[in-house]
Amino acid sequence: MTTDGYVPAPADRFSFGIWTVGWQGVDVFGPAVRPPMPADRAVRKLAELGAYGVNFHDNDVFDFDASESERDQRIAAFRQALADTGLVVTTATTNLFGHPMFKEGAFTANDRDVRRFALAKVMRNLDLAAGMGARVYVCWGGREGAESGASKDVRAALDRYKEAMDVLCQYVLDQGYAIRFAIEPKPNEPRGDILLPTLGHALAFITELEHPELVGVNPEVGHEEMSGLNYAHAISQALWHGKLFHIDLNGQHGPRYDQDLRFGAGNARGAFWVVDALAAGGYDGPVHFDYKPPRTEDDDGVWESARACMRNYLILREKVRAFRADPEVIKALADSRVSALSEPTLAAGETWRDVRAFTPDIGALAGRGMAFERLDQLALEHLYGVR
Amino acid sequence: MTTDGYVPAPADRFSFGIWTVGWQGVDVFGPAVRPPMPADRAVRKLAELGAYGVNFHDNDVFDFDASESERDQRIAAFRQALADTGLVVTTATTNLFGHPMFKEGAFTANDRDVRRFALAKVMRNLDLAAGMGARVYVCWGGREGAESGASKDVRAALDRYKEAMDVLCQYVLDQGYAIRFAIEPKPNEPRGDILLPTLGHALAFITELEHPELVGVNPEVGHEEMSGLNYAHAISQALWHGKLFHIDLNGQHGPRYDQDLRFGAGNARGAFWVVDALAAGGYDGPVHFDYKPPRTEDDDGVWESARACMRNYLILREKVRAFRADPEVIKALADSRVSALSEPTLAAGETWRDVRAFTPDIGALAGRGMAFERLDQLALEHLYGVR
Amino acid sequence: MTTDGYVPAPADRFSFGIWTVGWQGVDVFGPAVRPPMPADRAVRKLAELGAYGVNFHDNDVFDFDASESERDQRIAAFRQALADTGLVVTTATTNLFGHPMFKEGAFTANDRDVRRFALAKVMRNLDLAAGMGARVYVCWGGREGAESGASKDVRAALDRYKEAMDVLCQYVLDQGYAIRFAIEPKPNEPRGDILLPTLGHALAFITELEHPELVGVNPEVGHEEMSGLNYAHAISQALWHGKLFHIDLNGQHGPRYDQDLRFGAGNARGAFWVVDALAAGGYDGPVHFDYKPPRTEDDDGVWESARACMRNYLILREKVRAFRADPEVIKALADSRVSALSEPTLAAGETWRDVRAFTPDIGALAGRGMAFERLDQLALEHLYGVR
Amino acid sequence: MTTDGYVPAPADRFSFGIWTVGWQGVDVFGPAVRPPMPADRAVRKLAELGAYGVNFHDNDVFDFDASESERDQRIAAFRQALADTGLVVTTATTNLFGHPMFKEGAFTANDRDVRRFALAKVMRNLDLAAGMGARVYVCWGGREGAESGASKDVRAALDRYKEAMDVLCQYVLDQGYAIRFAIEPKPNEPRGDILLPTLGHALAFITELEHPELVGVNPEVGHEEMSGLNYAHAISQALWHGKLFHIDLNGQHGPRYDQDLRFGAGNARGAFWVVDALAAGGYDGPVHFDYKPPRTEDDDGVWESARACMRNYLILREKVRAFRADPEVIKALADSRVSALSEPTLAAGETWRDVRAFTPDIGALAGRGMAFERLDQLALEHLYGVR
Repeated sequence: MTTDGYVPAPADRFSFGIWTVGWQGVDVFGPAVRPPMPADRAVRKLAELGAYGVNFHDNDVFDFDASESERDQRIAAFRQALADTGLVVTTATTNLFGHPMFKEGAFTANDRDVRRFALAKVMRNLDLAAGMGARVYVCWGGREGAESGASKDVRAALDRYKEAMDVLCQYVLDQGYAIRFAIEPKPNEPRGDILLPTLGHALAFITELEHPELVGVNPEVGHEEMSGLNYAHAISQALWHGKLFHIDLNGQHGPRYDQDLRFGAGNARGAFWVVDALAAGGYDGPVHFDYKPPRTEDDDGVWESARACMRNYLILREKVRAFRADPEVIKALADSRVSALSEPTLAAGETWRDVRAFTPDIGALAGRGMAFERLDQLALEHLYGVR
Repeated sequence: MTTDGYVPAPADRFSFGIWTVGWQGVDVFGPAVRPPMPADRAVRKLAELGAYGVNFHDNDVFDFDASESERDQRIAAFRQALADTGLVVTTATTNLFGHPMFKEGAFTANDRDVRRFALAKVMRNLDLAAGMGARVYVCWGGREGAESGASKDVRAALDRYKEAMDVLCQYVLDQGYAIRFAIEPKPNEPRGDILLPTLGHALAFITELEHPELVGVNPEVGHEEMSGLNYAHAISQALWHGKLFHIDLNGQHGPRYDQDLRFGAGNARGAFWVVDALAAGGYDGPVHFDYKPPRTEDDDGVWESARACMRNYLILREKVRAFRADPEVIKALADSRVSALSEPTLAAGETWRDVRAFTPDIGALAGRGMAFERLDQLALEHLYGVR
Repeated sequence: MTTDGYVPAPADRFSFGIWTVGWQGVDVFGPAVRPPMPADRAVRKLAELGAYGVNFHDNDVFDFDASESERDQRIAAFRQALADTGLVVTTATTNLFGHPMFKEGAFTANDRDVRRFALAKVMRNLDLAAGMGARVYVCWGGREGAESGASKDVRAALDRYKEAMDVLCQYVLDQGYAIRFAIEPKPNEPRGDILLPTLGHALAFITELEHPELVGVNPEVGHEEMSGLNYAHAISQALWHGKLFHIDLNGQHGPRYDQDLRFGAGNARGAFWVVDALAAGGYDGPVHFDYKPPRTEDDDGVWESARACMRNYLILREKVRAFRADPEVIKALADSRVSALSEPTLAAGETWRDVRAFTPDIGALAGRGMAFERLDQLALEHLYGVR
Repeated sequence: MTTDGYVPAPADRFSFGIWTVGWQGVDVFGPAVRPPMPADRAVRKLAELGAYGVNFHDNDVFDFDASESERDQRIAAFRQALADTGLVVTTATTNLFGHPMFKEGAFTANDRDVRRFALAKVMRNLDLAAGMGARVYVCWGGREGAESGASKDVRAALDRYKEAMDVLCQYVLDQGYAIRFAIEPKPNEPRGDILLPTLGHALAFITELEHPELVGVNPEVGHEEMSGLNYAHAISQALWHGKLFHIDLNGQHGPRYDQDLRFGAGNARGAFWVVDALAAGGYDGPVHFDYKPPRTEDDDGVWESARACMRNYLILREKVRAFRADPEVIKALADSRVSALSEPTLAAGETWRDVRAFTPDIGALAGRGMAFERLDQLALEHLYGVR
């Protein structure tokens, strides 16, 4: 039992997907190692640990082929747990990847009936989500993609993806739901190549929609790192575009299968910069964890890992604050001229004419060191906790 | 000497960077293995091989610290070679990565004087490029990035990147140059993480500019594949956005150092789909090669590799056409319902109300095979030349 | 229906894992899309397609918790299908990764009872394998590894791995089974990091065993390519050590999740060199495919993909032979001095004293081109089928 | 100025390659940013920082084409600096990758004269190394490899590699030098695929040599991580084989170009386990850093980064000791049954007959959690310095 200050509280706005702690451990090479976890149990346990909210797929709460009464019963239990614990539903999403009918996509399935049903499934869950107070609706198109070149007309697929998002935006507008969408990019797995493979591709796509203002991104640490990309850079660009509607925090070891490690595990130094980037950019959404307790863990291990996600965020948040407040860091930042980048290249009133013939002291600029190693070492020592 | 039909002609619009055949083989572990190649020699040899055009950095033609007279002399020789051979300058670009002053970036360097000089250097070369008839101006920000977290304020860097592009767009507008810009993304190398790391990030960035209509992308096969991304998908998305202003064709073996292999080498199957995607999407820019003749090659090997780039494109173009015309392929595409994806999900006049309650025969859709393996095998056999 | 010459026959010695065509499509994100396939059905269908043999896990034939009578019944059906079709069991293996008890390893599980049971399970299946005539027994330790640093004492794990292999070697010796073992390396998935992650690590490990002569390797295309390694180089090194006891052919797109594409798909150019390396090195084991028909396929697609694996091997085999017989290739190999590498560096009778002061014409060697691009282009044109 | 306890002293046995702090910053995209650093200056500065020893390539001390007198003069200055400072030469190596003559390899170059000269060059430097007291001689075959399939006969290349190592082993034996060799693996860069790409491949290769006892490995953090492999696992396997003769510590961000970051930067969590594995395995060689001060740094930044390499090792060494001594960790290790793996699977006197019919309580083993998340979180909190 830890007795230090890294104890999560609702004010920290930590949230979890129901499917995270509920993951049973099925993978390509083996079946479930843990029993199913009803959504209401997940809610109650997460509340005990200090979480603030949850995110759910429709089929985290009730099975794909649940009868109406089963569905209602499961939802009622879920609602009761929320009511009892005070946890909020910050976010919801639809499972458009599990059922065999979605084996080739949902919004971009070649089969039009699959596409139509996918829209219906989302709309139905949007009703539930809105009723539960969700403000963000995540769209992860995990099966929207291809293993082979001719099987998917990518430009047509993007037309259909846009159509789907346009229809759904219209739906929430018409229904008056206070919900915005967040597209979650991923490069591959379970498909060979997934459409909108990175945060960048999703941000570009959004600009083509009918209601771009309603749609942002939900980047996941591991998904960007599977492409070898810097997640802190990614979320900084999303913040720059005003599009960081949600985040999925977890851990990964670079290009390989989707590991979904607990936050903090994986790229530990990257995690420090993630927390820094969120603070610097003023992210104010839920601090959401999308990870999988490893298959080696029993129920105790599940909660241990969930607790650790929040704890690591709190530890890193404290470190980041200390780093930014450290006088030596402030001096090192100045030595590296970091804030000089915030100064416009052209002074007020200048145009290209004012720099067209600009010639600096090239030798001096060439020889000048940036002192980045000093600065980065200070950051690393804050991570280590030795400053 | 090959006497088959894969002989490039200017009508094929093949172009090369001067720096490609001119690469001397300097890498991190060893010095030059080949003598410098004057730009005019590159032009004359490429013309002999059947190329249509060239692309150049300012410092491919004259050295960074060339005197005015040296500069003029080198440009004159370059112009003369173009005039003698009929090769056109399709594209130009600026070296903002070689000189030590750019060690930390150019448009996004922390040092403001570096940023100002970078703009001046581009404007000066834009004059030259416009005078030579270039219609595309490539911006590869190879040093715009960071190895460490605090050294670069990413959001400020994007502000400066935008500022630079806005200034340069205004410059070409004010000068009346018929030039459009194409941003070339790259994830890393020579910097630890480069800003605008993929085509997607660049496409998103462009939408924030003052003149987005003047700016598109120049994706390079190897750069996207260094992130494990599917280049054919990437250019298809760029075409979907109307932003594929230029392409850089070469070869790569996945996430590792930037190999810049000749086109066709590397991901051979991917190359087939690249040629297919360009044809399907109506790309009409120059078919540009940006590769490096390996350090093992002497001058003969340089030209062998350049010839092979064009030859491989012609071979693949023929294969792609045969594939698309093959009746078995047409049938297989139908079996895979590929064209059904071009049909809108909602029929004309339908709204979300028409699909809100849609329930298909789920079992039938779940059980239906997509026949993608058959289709992909046909494609592979066209690549193999056994059909 | 293809009527060309690429029709597999038993003399080609193609074999498949029962689990390949039998894969139901369960992955981390969705359940089965195809019904279970009894082993005897797989055998009969593979025989129709022209296969020579099969490989099986114990639990491909009967379930982990099958009763003795169920087990006997399933084995009998399997035997009958083999007898009816003439297919041989070339290879067998044990499922030590599926059952939850193996969630943390089998031969190297921390829990000693798991290790003891794993040995028992293998021995029991060795009896079955020997009775069916298998000559190779594959050991894939898919769960032998770790996601976190302290959880596994790697040196102790290697001790236990060695102990397990030593016990099993003694078992086959004592039982008089004509069986050799082949260790199958994999870097990760389903574990974060798997022990013996590449062919090299496995080759080194084998030298420490009590009976190294009984143990070789079974490298899989995708497993080595998941580490970004060159599979043709890998099997050439295995052949050099005399340790290529078996191969697992399939397709992969570099470092990402284990794709198990059909052979030929994935790295098409790499596949050409794989077939070349097998021929050059005199590999005489079964030509085994370990792939997964994509989840998009129905039963027809399963067989289409199985057929294509063999067909692609035959196509590539023909190409490789044509490449090696092509007079231009022979000349190009000479120009590249490839065979000069087979000449010892020291002449017969020479010692280090004869080269201690050797000084060649350094300038000449430095300037000499290797003509590799010419040679490689010839290979690529054989792959393309345009020569 | 840091005044804490993380101050390196010679007893810590830290060593650096002369080429590390001496790296001028030449890369594929730009020339030198720092002036050449004479070896004697590197020695004097490293001594000031608290280093114990150095490693050098012949051409770190004198140029490839230095005259004899230049060579003698540079060596004398190097020796004087060593004498003045007390730094020792722990290790030496030969540059067989820089000069254009080695563009296609050295020990495995197709051109026999290159191979012969490479041996001569190494022998000559072995004399120097022995005279300076080096006990380890590193062989990094950075150009031994290929970009294309037919250009290198891999099995012949391994024959020549073995021949080279056998000749060199005989040389040190005949000369009576107390030197052992350490092969340094790397997967790629500067060649497309390098022979002996991982520690495993090198370990296997060594077993085929005439004097395997004289040859071990020198694994580099970044080189193994470029293949996505776990470096702590790698060195644990090397220690298990008794072959960890030397280490190259630095930092890397997974599969991409060779970053050569300072130790601690890159995979910070991995670095913790590296230090732990070295301690647990009893590694007693020099703690060697092979990194490159980033091109952004001036001379001050060079020394800052060198100092930080040592400092980070000391910080991590303290953390690892605290982790292993922490009573909660000891309990958590027991809960995870980590030490149970050191118990042989078969008891003393048991044979396979004793486990052939072993049947444990399968349900109990399947349901038992491993408690690895708890254990790993304790490790992470030690890394964070919050315990």
